[in-house]
Amino acid sequence: MNLAQLDTPALVVDLDKLESNLKTMQTRINTLGLTLRPHTKAHKIPAIAQMQIEAGAKGICTSKLGEAEVMAKGGIKDILITTPIAGDKKIQRLVTLHQHYPDCRLIQIVDHIEHVKQIAIAASKAGLIIELMIEVESGQQRCGVAVGDELITLIQLIQQTEGVSYAGVQAYSGHLQHIKGYDARNKQAKAAVQDLFTLIESTLKPKGLAPEIISGGGTGTYAAYQDLNYTEIQAGSYLFMDASYRAIGDEHHDEKNTQFQAALSVLSTVISHPTSTRAVVDAGMKCLSIDSGMPIIEGREDITYQTGGDEHGILHLEEPNTQLEIGQQLTFIPSHCDTTLNNFDTLYGVRDGEVVEQWEILGRGRSD
Amino acid sequence: MNLAQLDTPALVVDLDKLESNLKTMQTRINTLGLTLRPHTKAHKIPAIAQMQIEAGAKGICTSKLGEAEVMAKGGIKDILITTPIAGDKKIQRLVTLHQHYPDCRLIQIVDHIEHVKQIAIAASKAGLIIELMIEVESGQQRCGVAVGDELITLIQLIQQTEGVSYAGVQAYSGHLQHIKGYDARNKQAKAAVQDLFTLIESTLKPKGLAPEIISGGGTGTYAAYQDLNYTEIQAGSYLFMDASYRAIGDEHHDEKNTQFQAALSVLSTVISHPTSTRAVVDAGMKCLSIDSGMPIIEGREDITYQTGGDEHGILHLEEPNTQLEIGQQLTFIPSHCDTTLNNFDTLYGVRDGEVVEQWEILGRGRSD
Repeated sequence: MNLAQLDTPALVVDLDKLESNLKTMQTRINTLGLTLRPHTKAHKIPAIAQMQIEAGAKGICTSKLGEAEVMAKGGIKDILITTPIAGDKKIQRLVTLHQHYPDCRLIQIVDHIEHVKQIAIAASKAGLIIELMIEVESGQQRCGVAVGDELITLIQLIQQTEGVSYAGVQAYSGHLQHIKGYDARNKQAKAAVQDLFTLIESTLKPKGLAPEIISGGGTGTYAAYQDLNYTEIQAGSYLFMDASYRAIGDEHHDEKNTQFQAALSVLSTVISHPTSTRAVVDAGMKCLSIDSGMPIIEGREDITYQTGGDEHGILHLEEPNTQLEIGQQLTFIPSHCDTTLNNFDTLYGVRDGEVVEQWEILGRGRSD
Repeated sequence: MNLAQLDTPALVVDLDKLESNLKTMQTRINTLGLTLRPHTKAHKIPAIAQMQIEAGAKGICTSKLGEAEVMAKGGIKDILITTPIAGDKKIQRLVTLHQHYPDCRLIQIVDHIEHVKQIAIAASKAGLIIELMIEVESGQQRCGVAVGDELITLIQLIQQTEGVSYAGVQAYSGHLQHIKGYDARNKQAKAAVQDLFTLIESTLKPKGLAPEIISGGGTGTYAAYQDLNYTEIQAGSYLFMDASYRAIGDEHHDEKNTQFQAALSVLSTVISHPTSTRAVVDAGMKCLSIDSGMPIIEGREDITYQTGGDEHGILHLEEPNTQLEIGQQLTFIPSHCDTTLNNFDTLYGVRDGEVVEQWEILGRGRSD
């Protein structure tokens, strides 16, 4: 089947570009002397996680326990769950996941004494030792224990508590990933974690509390951490890219990132063309998310997408004589790969215009 | 199972409120002397569509053909597909849907000669007559043929073409649904379709082109159409309501709508509490959409939700001594019911704190 035969809206990945991005990031991370633990929350497909591991990644990240369940079932053997969990049901599911996949390394992020206590009780009861990593505040002001006495107390608690073990720290500055300009971004990324590395040297190492793993970084900031002692980079969006990440700048440009290629797209169809300068496509917010702006058609700056609500996309045509026909397909680069992919059940892999892969997005909707 | 036993994030509907909204809208529409054809694109569940029909609705709307396929399979017998379709695959699916459900009335919206021609060819080939309704421009500048000669030509084409028949017009002013203030909104709603009704009286009726069905209106504007000759109201969001619709004003308030109750919510869990004025919940943009603003906790104006990205919601607490515990559940009213529901696979129905229904959201992701 070729691309034009797909019914729309359809979520499509260009496999040549995907593989190029996969290789580029792995090579860059290797060159920096770092290790890649890619975040899979954007793609949610075990087969793609497997491709990342085969390319050299040490393991993967998932944001949610539900995603980790999908990835462990899909054969992934090393998973860091990057968001704290809470509540009896969640903790019991974490225990069950450990029990079902004893040969999968599973590390859970925590940032509070309560997490440690509750996980430890459940783990001990099950005869397990669950590895924990501590999220530290890295400027984002979301989750994360403050760098200082609170962090020291939490590490000591984990070390002293039966049923859990201390694997390291997570320092992820999500708020900096889209800062425009390569140098400005990397400078801020380093500054955001300076206190942590000072504390590690001044206090954690002497006290025997130094983290074995220091994990963080994203597609925007991965290059900042060469001089620091990060051990793992969690980048994920590099695989697909999206219009937002395409606009953050790279080594050579201020507002354009050419390090990676835009591999993910949504194939849509022109369903209406009421005026000479306005057409409508069949992909609205339930396909193309708009939390990070509007999707774009690469190379067609004369066509502007405006959301037309849940099910419509309105196209404004700069020139009244733009050739668009009802039934014609158009390809949009999403503004945000994560929330766009989460709308679809299937991802089609395309090479040279032929649909050669059809992946079920097994982790879709697994925000639990 | 009671509500507190649900794992989170979970999509929940209060059945008492849902039933109250169902009854209130049906009564209001009856009182106005209109007919209700509720839009089901927000809930996407055939069992709920069935409840609407049992309460007095004449049929339903779906936005997409994919949703219509789900609803027809679910036993609904009268469906208006409110968005034009284009492309061979879509038109063939429309034909197949007619063939599979011969006792289901299926009406397809069109707004262009091309739609009519292509559907007519496929319908004739299959020995069918497919009912078409024409979307007219009603101020939204999305789909819709201009009111005037183009509309007349399109009606005549449908009347003269084998394989299709002319069922009426759709005039939906989506852009007016959230105008603040009841009187201002209804005044604009009437003004937006005035040209259409003038054309109907002056030209369509004399020429034998008058529409049998005139369909449109939403939760914001349904009350505007009593004096006009609308035959069907397409409101849908009244069933769930959301924070946006709660803020549009009603007969008694400028910025508050108390006509319907907030029935839909997302149950979420506090997973982190890093500072005395900040906590984090497990529902981010992949659960609670933010295209129409932030979700709210009703009655807790001291807690403000800020998006924390795809998987986190950040809570800002006005008072540092607000009692929130890790593991505690909180209930959010989505800002936009449509895009929030489309993130979930299951809708839990709750009555008096007990989970008594569990609906699979069969139309989720069916934007095709």
